[in-house]
Amino acid sequence: MPRDLRIALLGFGNVGRRFAERLGGPYLRALQREGVRPLVTGVATARHGSALDQRGLDVRACLRAVRGSGSLASLHFGLPVRSAADFIARVEADALVLVTPTDPKRGEPATTHVRLALTRGLNVVTANKGPVAFARRRLKALAARRQRLFLHEGAVMDGAPVFNLVEQCLPGLRVLGFRGNLNSTTNHILSRLEAGRSFDTALAEAQAQGIAEADPAHDLDGWDAALKGCALANGLLGASVHPRAVKRQGIRGLSGPVVLTALREGRRIRLVVRGERKGRHVRVSVRPERLPVGDPLAGSGPDAALVLRTDLMGEIGILERGMSVDQTAYALLADLVVVARSLTRSY
Amino acid sequence: MPRDLRIALLGFGNVGRRFAERLGGPYLRALQREGVRPLVTGVATARHGSALDQRGLDVRACLRAVRGSGSLASLHFGLPVRSAADFIARVEADALVLVTPTDPKRGEPATTHVRLALTRGLNVVTANKGPVAFARRRLKALAARRQRLFLHEGAVMDGAPVFNLVEQCLPGLRVLGFRGNLNSTTNHILSRLEAGRSFDTALAEAQAQGIAEADPAHDLDGWDAALKGCALANGLLGASVHPRAVKRQGIRGLSGPVVLTALREGRRIRLVVRGERKGRHVRVSVRPERLPVGDPLAGSGPDAALVLRTDLMGEIGILERGMSVDQTAYALLADLVVVARSLTRSY
Repeated sequence: MPRDLRIALLGFGNVGRRFAERLGGPYLRALQREGVRPLVTGVATARHGSALDQRGLDVRACLRAVRGSGSLASLHFGLPVRSAADFIARVEADALVLVTPTDPKRGEPATTHVRLALTRGLNVVTANKGPVAFARRRLKALAARRQRLFLHEGAVMDGAPVFNLVEQCLPGLRVLGFRGNLNSTTNHILSRLEAGRSFDTALAEAQAQGIAEADPAHDLDGWDAALKGCALANGLLGASVHPRAVKRQGIRGLSGPVVLTALREGRRIRLVVRGERKGRHVRVSVRPERLPVGDPLAGSGPDAALVLRTDLMGEIGILERGMSVDQTAYALLADLVVVARSLTRSY
Repeated sequence: MPRDLRIALLGFGNVGRRFAERLGGPYLRALQREGVRPLVTGVATARHGSALDQRGLDVRACLRAVRGSGSLASLHFGLPVRSAADFIARVEADALVLVTPTDPKRGEPATTHVRLALTRGLNVVTANKGPVAFARRRLKALAARRQRLFLHEGAVMDGAPVFNLVEQCLPGLRVLGFRGNLNSTTNHILSRLEAGRSFDTALAEAQAQGIAEADPAHDLDGWDAALKGCALANGLLGASVHPRAVKRQGIRGLSGPVVLTALREGRRIRLVVRGERKGRHVRVSVRPERLPVGDPLAGSGPDAALVLRTDLMGEIGILERGMSVDQTAYALLADLVVVARSLTRSY
């Protein structure tokens, strides 16, 4: 008999919903292979209320309820859920799946949510970059004390294995540094400049396609890349770098002519995140670099790439083509499988 | 108390020796983290004799003994080892580490060695492509019946995670197809043609640098790539494709002018291995392709790249920069860690 893997979903936007949809299909089979049966015991949303049911919620009913302006209220059992903290305090779950939006300035309230969940003895799986960039070391230490897992594969490059890759497939190896092209919005805009668009047109197009947000400052000024750089430095280099300590330069200063001149010289300008050990410190930087056209980081459109420099294996790169809700949702599954393995393994 | 992980080394060439050297250093720490202590209980070589000692061999003494024209005989306990089969039959070990040279035509005697070891209840870890390309399905089934592992991360792209990546980090996902640039010799030669060398000069240089073998047919005619393609098809697509069924075209027909003309058109010619599901069948092919300069497979020198097309995660790529004995030896460690986990996990 498989044991239940009780899941609490905090956040039910595009990623949370895609995850929930697939939990009945391909994700179910992956979890069953690990000897567990997923059971969603709580869903908390920002605008559609929350539902708790320790016997398991009907996930399809939850998905139907939040379409349009509906509410989860009719699926809820018990006293009303007053807040996210109240939800975390009351939900009966093995794992909290945290898919709220990232706050680039402080990583809150997500960091608090992770802390509350770990303290209560829940494993935590998240695609939110905030807690990883701002507080990973503290949260990992808390998780270790509580003998629980804090996993965040989706924080960088969606479900393409980065953190789990190093943790599970690269044993005994030391990551010495990394460089990555990790922000899809700037990558898309720079590709369009190479195709002859002006900066403003490229940005407007990216916004129309839903690639760039209405307020694109977060991407254009390199904040998103800085957060990812900190997540990588903290996760792969054992550092504790704060996003404010990142030397950061965005792409606003770049124009079509600059990008086209570089291209004629066989170079592509891309926003590159670097993390390097300098003695006992780790330095993270974000700035546009002129890369040879054949560089793994010089991809077009929404592609992402990360190259790790290691002691035992030289350089290893990971690429992700396209960036979609599917790929972010998949990161949550990959982490839940690690949680499932920890639950079914007897120590 | 860590339990012993008893290791038998069959093959003690460059890769086997590098593995043995590191077993006392960085590899030791990685295995200790998994709760095991490596103990080499046997080493079999083609030209330096063999040694068995169930209490554990002095690995440094083994390394010293094989330098020059020395022999392992003085380290051996018991009746003389008559053959590799005799070694496998008698060694007291948890895992056989098989690092003999690949036979491109039949995958023997390595396939027989794997079969004998699994039948005897040894886990098997190998960097030899033969058993994976010619007999993976059969050997995996045998391993499953004996509740042992047959792992072969080093068969493709050295220690860059490919098989372990899909197995451990991409749960529930279906690989639909792949394309790879996996042969370092042809990649190096094609890069040199782009730099203006003639085919014969580029080949001679590659031989002088030890990149190409004295008999380069195996690489130039696409046999090595075909074996790797079969290993991938069998390992990632669940196929059972025989190397003779691979549609194969090598790089001998290519000349400097052809390669340079392509380059002027923004293309790089590279030997590409493809594996694709066609209905219920899997087809593997090897042929030179004209790739856009920015393609992940269009790298230079000794780099290798593999792009997987998947159902749940779109396209994911893995790159390896450089190809060295270190990187192949590391594959053996990565697999041994998986073996260690299986030994220390109680079912």
